Amino acid sequence: MEALFSLLKEYEQEMIEIRRHLHEHPELSYHEVYTPAYIAEYHQKLGHEVRTGVGGRGVVATLRGSKPGKTVALRADFDALAIQEENDIPYKSKVDGVMHACGHDGHTATLLVLAKALNKLQADIEGNIVFIHQFAEELSPGGAIAMIEDGCLEGVDVIFGTHLWATEPVGNIMINAGPLMAAADQFDITIQGKGGHGSEPHMTKDAIMIGAQFITNVQQIVSRRVNPLHPAVVSVCNFVAQNPFNVIADTVKLSGTARTFHDEARDLIEKEIGNVIQASCQMVGASYDYRFKRGYPAVVNHKEETDFIIKHAEQIEEVQQVRICDPIMGGEDFAYYLQHVKGAFFFTGAMDPNWEEVYPHHHPKFNIDEHSLLIAAKTLGSATLNYLSNESVQDKQESLINE
Amino acid sequence: MEALFSLLKEYEQEMIEIRRHLHEHPELSYHEVYTPAYIAEYHQKLGHEVRTGVGGRGVVATLRGSKPGKTVALRADFDALAIQEENDIPYKSKVDGVMHACGHDGHTATLLVLAKALNKLQADIEGNIVFIHQFAEELSPGGAIAMIEDGCLEGVDVIFGTHLWATEPVGNIMINAGPLMAAADQFDITIQGKGGHGSEPHMTKDAIMIGAQFITNVQQIVSRRVNPLHPAVVSVCNFVAQNPFNVIADTVKLSGTARTFHDEARDLIEKEIGNVIQASCQMVGASYDYRFKRGYPAVVNHKEETDFIIKHAEQIEEVQQVRICDPIMGGEDFAYYLQHVKGAFFFTGAMDPNWEEVYPHHHPKFNIDEHSLLIAAKTLGSATLNYLSNESVQDKQESLINE
Amino acid sequence: MEALFSLLKEYEQEMIEIRRHLHEHPELSYHEVYTPAYIAEYHQKLGHEVRTGVGGRGVVATLRGSKPGKTVALRADFDALAIQEENDIPYKSKVDGVMHACGHDGHTATLLVLAKALNKLQADIEGNIVFIHQFAEELSPGGAIAMIEDGCLEGVDVIFGTHLWATEPVGNIMINAGPLMAAADQFDITIQGKGGHGSEPHMTKDAIMIGAQFITNVQQIVSRRVNPLHPAVVSVCNFVAQNPFNVIADTVKLSGTARTFHDEARDLIEKEIGNVIQASCQMVGASYDYRFKRGYPAVVNHKEETDFIIKHAEQIEEVQQVRICDPIMGGEDFAYYLQHVKGAFFFTGAMDPNWEEVYPHHHPKFNIDEHSLLIAAKTLGSATLNYLSNESVQDKQESLINE
Amino acid sequence: MEALFSLLKEYEQEMIEIRRHLHEHPELSYHEVYTPAYIAEYHQKLGHEVRTGVGGRGVVATLRGSKPGKTVALRADFDALAIQEENDIPYKSKVDGVMHACGHDGHTATLLVLAKALNKLQADIEGNIVFIHQFAEELSPGGAIAMIEDGCLEGVDVIFGTHLWATEPVGNIMINAGPLMAAADQFDITIQGKGGHGSEPHMTKDAIMIGAQFITNVQQIVSRRVNPLHPAVVSVCNFVAQNPFNVIADTVKLSGTARTFHDEARDLIEKEIGNVIQASCQMVGASYDYRFKRGYPAVVNHKEETDFIIKHAEQIEEVQQVRICDPIMGGEDFAYYLQHVKGAFFFTGAMDPNWEEVYPHHHPKFNIDEHSLLIAAKTLGSATLNYLSNESVQDKQESLINE
Repeated sequence: MEALFSLLKEYEQEMIEIRRHLHEHPELSYHEVYTPAYIAEYHQKLGHEVRTGVGGRGVVATLRGSKPGKTVALRADFDALAIQEENDIPYKSKVDGVMHACGHDGHTATLLVLAKALNKLQADIEGNIVFIHQFAEELSPGGAIAMIEDGCLEGVDVIFGTHLWATEPVGNIMINAGPLMAAADQFDITIQGKGGHGSEPHMTKDAIMIGAQFITNVQQIVSRRVNPLHPAVVSVCNFVAQNPFNVIADTVKLSGTARTFHDEARDLIEKEIGNVIQASCQMVGASYDYRFKRGYPAVVNHKEETDFIIKHAEQIEEVQQVRICDPIMGGEDFAYYLQHVKGAFFFTGAMDPNWEEVYPHHHPKFNIDEHSLLIAAKTLGSATLNYLSNESVQDKQESLINE
Repeated sequence: MEALFSLLKEYEQEMIEIRRHLHEHPELSYHEVYTPAYIAEYHQKLGHEVRTGVGGRGVVATLRGSKPGKTVALRADFDALAIQEENDIPYKSKVDGVMHACGHDGHTATLLVLAKALNKLQADIEGNIVFIHQFAEELSPGGAIAMIEDGCLEGVDVIFGTHLWATEPVGNIMINAGPLMAAADQFDITIQGKGGHGSEPHMTKDAIMIGAQFITNVQQIVSRRVNPLHPAVVSVCNFVAQNPFNVIADTVKLSGTARTFHDEARDLIEKEIGNVIQASCQMVGASYDYRFKRGYPAVVNHKEETDFIIKHAEQIEEVQQVRICDPIMGGEDFAYYLQHVKGAFFFTGAMDPNWEEVYPHHHPKFNIDEHSLLIAAKTLGSATLNYLSNESVQDKQESLINE
Repeated sequence: MEALFSLLKEYEQEMIEIRRHLHEHPELSYHEVYTPAYIAEYHQKLGHEVRTGVGGRGVVATLRGSKPGKTVALRADFDALAIQEENDIPYKSKVDGVMHACGHDGHTATLLVLAKALNKLQADIEGNIVFIHQFAEELSPGGAIAMIEDGCLEGVDVIFGTHLWATEPVGNIMINAGPLMAAADQFDITIQGKGGHGSEPHMTKDAIMIGAQFITNVQQIVSRRVNPLHPAVVSVCNFVAQNPFNVIADTVKLSGTARTFHDEARDLIEKEIGNVIQASCQMVGASYDYRFKRGYPAVVNHKEETDFIIKHAEQIEEVQQVRICDPIMGGEDFAYYLQHVKGAFFFTGAMDPNWEEVYPHHHPKFNIDEHSLLIAAKTLGSATLNYLSNESVQDKQESLINE
Repeated sequence: MEALFSLLKEYEQEMIEIRRHLHEHPELSYHEVYTPAYIAEYHQKLGHEVRTGVGGRGVVATLRGSKPGKTVALRADFDALAIQEENDIPYKSKVDGVMHACGHDGHTATLLVLAKALNKLQADIEGNIVFIHQFAEELSPGGAIAMIEDGCLEGVDVIFGTHLWATEPVGNIMINAGPLMAAADQFDITIQGKGGHGSEPHMTKDAIMIGAQFITNVQQIVSRRVNPLHPAVVSVCNFVAQNPFNVIADTVKLSGTARTFHDEARDLIEKEIGNVIQASCQMVGASYDYRFKRGYPAVVNHKEETDFIIKHAEQIEEVQQVRICDPIMGGEDFAYYLQHVKGAFFFTGAMDPNWEEVYPHHHPKFNIDEHSLLIAAKTLGSATLNYLSNESVQDKQESLINE
C-alpha cells in the first residue's frame, strides 16, 4: 500500500489540476461530449482498454493486472448542473448557467489519477480493475441503468464509489452498512371536483375540501401502514387552487415526495397514496389523476464490503475519523450498481474547517476542500488493492465474525 | 289605486326611455356625478324637496301629501359595474368598461316615474313619501350606511324597495318574511410555518399540513357550533402554496366566504374561524394572520310589512304570482335600512319568457324585460298609497290575524 | 263561538277529572286496553259513531252535524311511558314503572270534553267532526301510520292537533308554518377492522382510526352537502372500542342521530353517511355494517291552516300570546296525518309560572298546569267551528293574500 | 473454552431440573421470597460472595478469579406472571394463578449452573464475575433500577444477558447492535366536554368529536414531527364514550401506547401528544386530563459488545445461526443496565421445531425447548471467559476495524 499511497501523494497536484480543468468546462446531464472524450483519452494514454459511448455517453476503462484474480469496479460520475456559478475563483465555470456544483469534477479527477497510479503497480496486481465513468447522475433515469444494461458490470465482483461531501470536514469518511441514501420519488395529483358559488357548497364537489381531506388522511400511511422499522416520509409540498374568495374550487393540483429505504415501504406508499386519493374523491363523486414517478432507489450498502471500506480507511494517515452516519434522504443512482453486485458507497469529507460559511451541494457558491481528493483516491485505491490481494471476505463464517 | 295605476300605465314609455338613457350613461360606485344630478333635476322639476350629496352622492327627494300622516320611504340604487357591455342594443353603454349590468338603471327609472305619478295624486295623499336614490350599492361599505347617517331615514315609518330579477319570469314577485338575502363576509388567512426539505418534515412546520387541518377542522363550525336552525356556509375557496414537489411549504394563503342570515351565527363564525386557525397553528408553533371582512348584513324583511307587500301585489293585474322564495345567498345594503325602520324588500321578475338564453346579473350580456318596470312601479306605489291610507298594520294583534 | 267557549268553561272541571283519572291509569304504547275502552264508552254515551281497534288499538269517533259540510279531524294520543312517577300528588300513577309523563292524559281529556261540548252544538254544525284517539305515539313506528291505513282520515278535509308543553307558560300558543318538529332518525355502525398489538399498526386495520376518520369526514355532510337552507344535524353520540392500552382495536361500535325538516336533506344524509363510512373503510380494506333507522318524519304545518289556527287562537280570552316559534328538534307521528291532509299542529303552554322548578317532558316529576286543558280545548274547538262555518281558506288567490 | 463447554454439558440435566423446580414454584413480581432464598443458598454453597435483598429482593453473587482483571456481570431475572398455567406437564405450576410464562425459570437455572461451572474454572480466571439475579422484571418500575441504585453494577466493566425466545427455533441466537427492544409507554386521556341532546350540537362541547379530531391530528406526530430515522409508533387503542344514540358525549376516555427506540423521539412524543390534545380541546373550550406513563426505556445494545457476542456465539457447536434481527417492540428493564455499563442483550431460540403449535410468551400454554438452556449458558459463559482473557475490545480503532 505504501507504493500506491506514495504515488498518489506524488500525483496530488495533477488531480487538483484536472479537477479545476473539468470545473471550467462543465456539461449538463445527457449532454456530455467534451468530458467523456477527455476521460477516454486519459485512459488510452495509460494503455487501458477503453469503451466509449457505454449506455450512451459513459466511458469504461479496464486495467488488467499481471495475474488472474477478482475484478473490482470503481465508479465516478461526471455531469454538471444547470446552475450559474457565483464563486469568484480562477477556475470558475466558463459555461454560462452550467456548473459543477456537486463535486463530480472532483470524482472524475480522483478516479483518473488513481487509475494512473494503479497502472504503475500493474505488475503487482492480481485481477482486474474497471473504471466506470458515468454520465447523467443528476437527472432521472440517470446513466447507471443504461451503462449496466450495456455491460459495464460484466465480470465485476465488487464495486466501490464515493461522493465528496462539502458539509463534512475533510479528513472524515462517512459510511453505514445497509441503507445509506433514500429512494426519492415524486407524486402528482390533480383533483377534479365541481366548482360553484361559495354560498352553495351543496351544488359543488369542493376540490379544496377533498384535497384537505386527502392530506389529513394520507398521514396515516406513515403513521399506521408502513412498518415502523422502515423509515418513510410522505410530504405534500405543493397545493394550488387559486380562486376568488367566493368561488368554490373546481380543481386542485398537488404534488409531493416520498422517501424510503426499503422496497416494501416504497411499494406500499405508492399503492396507499392511490387508495387514499381514491377514497377521498369517491366520497363525493369527484375524479382524479394520480402519478407516482419513481426516482432512484435507495443506496443500500452491503455489510461486508462496508466493513471492508471502514477497516482500510482507518489505516489511511489523512483519515481522522470513519463515522457511522445516519442514512441521508437524498438519492444517488449508484443504488443500481449495488442491486447487481456487492459493494459499498461512502462520503469523503470535503469541507475546509476554516471556511466561514459552508454552502451545500447544488448551491451557486458550492466548493470543496481539494485535500479531499487525495483522501478519496487513497480510500478507493487501498480498498481495491486489498480486495484483490485476497484479504477480502472469503466465506460466510468469517464474514459473520467480522460483523 | 285606479288613478295611480292608470297614470303609471300612461307613463310606462317614459320609464323605459329614462332607463335606456341611464343605461347609456353608467357610472361606477363612488364615482357617480351625472346620474345624481339627473335625478335631482327630475325631482326638482316636480317641485319636490331635494337634498343632494346625501351621505356623499345620494339624492333624497320628499313629496309631502296634502294632509299629515305617516312617512313611507322608497329606495332605488343607481350605480353601475366595471363590466364591458356585450349586448348589441341601441341603448348600449357609451362608457367603455362600465355597464348597468345589475338593473339599477331600471330601479332609478321606476322610482322617478313613480314619483311623478304620485306627485299628481298629492291632493289625495295623507302623509309623506321619501324617495331615496342611493349611490354605491355594488361596493362595500356601500352608500346606504352613509345616507342613513346623513339622515335619509329621519321621520320615516316604513321603507320599501325592490330589485329587478333577470332570472325570474316577468309577472312574478318573489319575497319572503324574515331573512331574504344573506350576510356575505370574506376571510383571509396567511399561515406562516417553516419550510424545509421534503425529506425532513421534522425540521419544519408544514404550512400545507396546517392548512389542511384547518380546513378539516373548520367544517365543525357549521356542523357542530352554529345553531342548526340558522343557515350558515363557510367555504374555503382559495388555497395557494406553490412549491417544488420536494420543498415543504413555508407559507400558505387561503381565503373564503361565510354566509349567514342571523347576527348570532355571523358573530360566532367570525370568532370560531379564529379559534380553529389559532389551535391549528399553535399545535405546531406556527403563526398566522387572520382577517374577517364583513360585507353587507343579511336583508331581513319585517313580517307584517312583507305580508303587506304580498297582499297588495296580489291585486295588481300584471302580477301573475307572488312567490314565497327561499332566501338568496347574495348581499344587498338595503339590509341597513331594515335595521333602522320597518319595511320589506322584494324581487320583481324581469326575465322575458321568450329569451333563448338568460344571462345572470353581472354578466356582460345581462338585460331585463322592460315590462318589469311597470310592475315594480305599481307594486311599490300601491303599497305606498295603501300604507298611507291607513289600511296598514296598526297593532300587533291585527297583524297576527292577517298573517 | 260564545256558546262553545261557555260550554267548555262549564265542563272544565270534568276535563281535569278525566285527565287525573287517566293519569292514575297509564298504559304503555302498544299495550293500551283500558284507555281506549274508556274513550270509546265516553263517545258512545254521547251517541257518536265509534270505531274501536282502528289500526290496532285506536278509537275513532264521528260527530255528524245537522247539515252537510266539510270534515274536520282532531287528534289526541293516549299512551304513557315506562317511567316511575316521582310526583307526590293525589292522582299519582297507580301503575308501577308507568307514567303519563308527556301529557297524553291531558290530550285525551281535552278531546273527550271538547267532543261533549261540540255534541251539544250539533244542531248548528254544518259538516262532520272526527275525533281521532291515537295509541302508541311514543314508540316507533307509532299508531298514526296504522290508523291512517285503517281509514281514520277518510273524508277528512283538515286535521288539527296540539301538544301540551310543560316548558312554555300557560296562556301561550306556539306554532310555526312549515317545519315544526324534526324528523329524528338513528344510525348504527359497526366497523370491522383487524386488531393487533399496539406496537404493530402496520399489521392491523385500526378500527378506532377508521372511526375517528369517519367522524371527522362526516362533518362535511352538514357543512358541505346539505342545502344550507335545510336545517340538519348529524351527531355521533356513542363510540365504543374498549381495549387494553396496547391492543389495537379490532372493532368499533358507534351510533348517532340525524335530524332534518326536509325529505331531501333526510334522504341525502342517509345516503351520504353510507358514502363516508364506505370510503373510510375501503381506504384500509376494512368492512362495516351500517343501519339507518328512520323515526317519525318532520311535522310540517300547512301555511294556511297554521294561519287559521293563529287567527282564531288570538281571539281566545285566555290566550295571552300566539308565538311563532322556532322548529323543535323532537319528533311526533302527527307528521303522518299532515302528509295526507292539510292541517296544523301547535303547542299549548302548560307551565305554571309559579313553579319553582320546571321538569321537562319524560321526567319522573313532569306535570302540567291544568289551566292549559281549557285553552287547548278552546283553540281546537274554535278552529273547528270556524272552519266548518266556511270562514276557512277557499281558493288559491285569497289564500295567498292571507299568507 | 473446551473446559467450560464440557462442564456445562455435564451439568445440563441439573439445569433442567432446577428450571422445572422453579417452574413449579413461581412467585409474582415484588412478591418473590422462596426464589431469591433458593438462589442465594445455591451460590453460598459454591462459596460465592452473596448479597441478598439487593434493591429489595435481588440477589447478587460474586465469583472472584485467581488473578485480578476485569469484571463481567451476567443477569437473569426470576419473577413469574399472574397467569393460570394450562400446560399438562409433570412440573406444572403448583401455585394457582401464577406461572413462569416468560421463561425466567430457565434464565435463573441457566445462570446458577453457569456459575457452578465457572466456579470450577476459578483458578484460570483473571478478574471477577458478578451474577445478578433480578426480581420483578415483569412489572414497572421493575427491579433493575433498584438493584443498580443498590450497587449491583459497582466495578462492573461489561454486562451480558439473554432472554429465551419461544418463537425462535432452538439453535438460533438473535441480536442486533443498537436498539433491540423498544421503550414502551402508555398514555391515558380523559376529555371533558359538555354533553347534551343529539339534536343540539351547538349547545354542547362534543367530546367524541374532540376525540376523533385528536386521533386524526395525532397521526402527524409520527408522520411529520418525529425524525423519520427514528422508528416510532403512537397507537390509540382504547376509546370509550358510551351514550344513548341521541345524547352527545360529555366525556371520552381514551388510552394508547407509544413505542420508540430513541430518547429524543420518546420525549418528543410525550410532549406532542400534549400539544395535540391541548389544541384539540382548546378549539372548543373543553378540558382534559393527560397522563403519559413511561415504561422501560429502549434496550440499546453497544456495538462492540454485540459484535463480541456474535463472534463467540458463532463458535458454539449447538448454535446454528446468529441472526441479526429487527428490533422488537416489547420492553425489558435490562435497558437500565445498558445505560450504566457497556454490554449486550440477546435472544436464545427456545422453540422446539417439532411443536405443532407455538404459544407466545405470556400465554397459559407457553413453554420452552429445554435444549435452549445449554445454548444460553454456553453463549454467556463463552463471552465471559473470552472477555476476561483479554480477547475483548481494547481500543476504539481496533473495534472499528472489527465492525
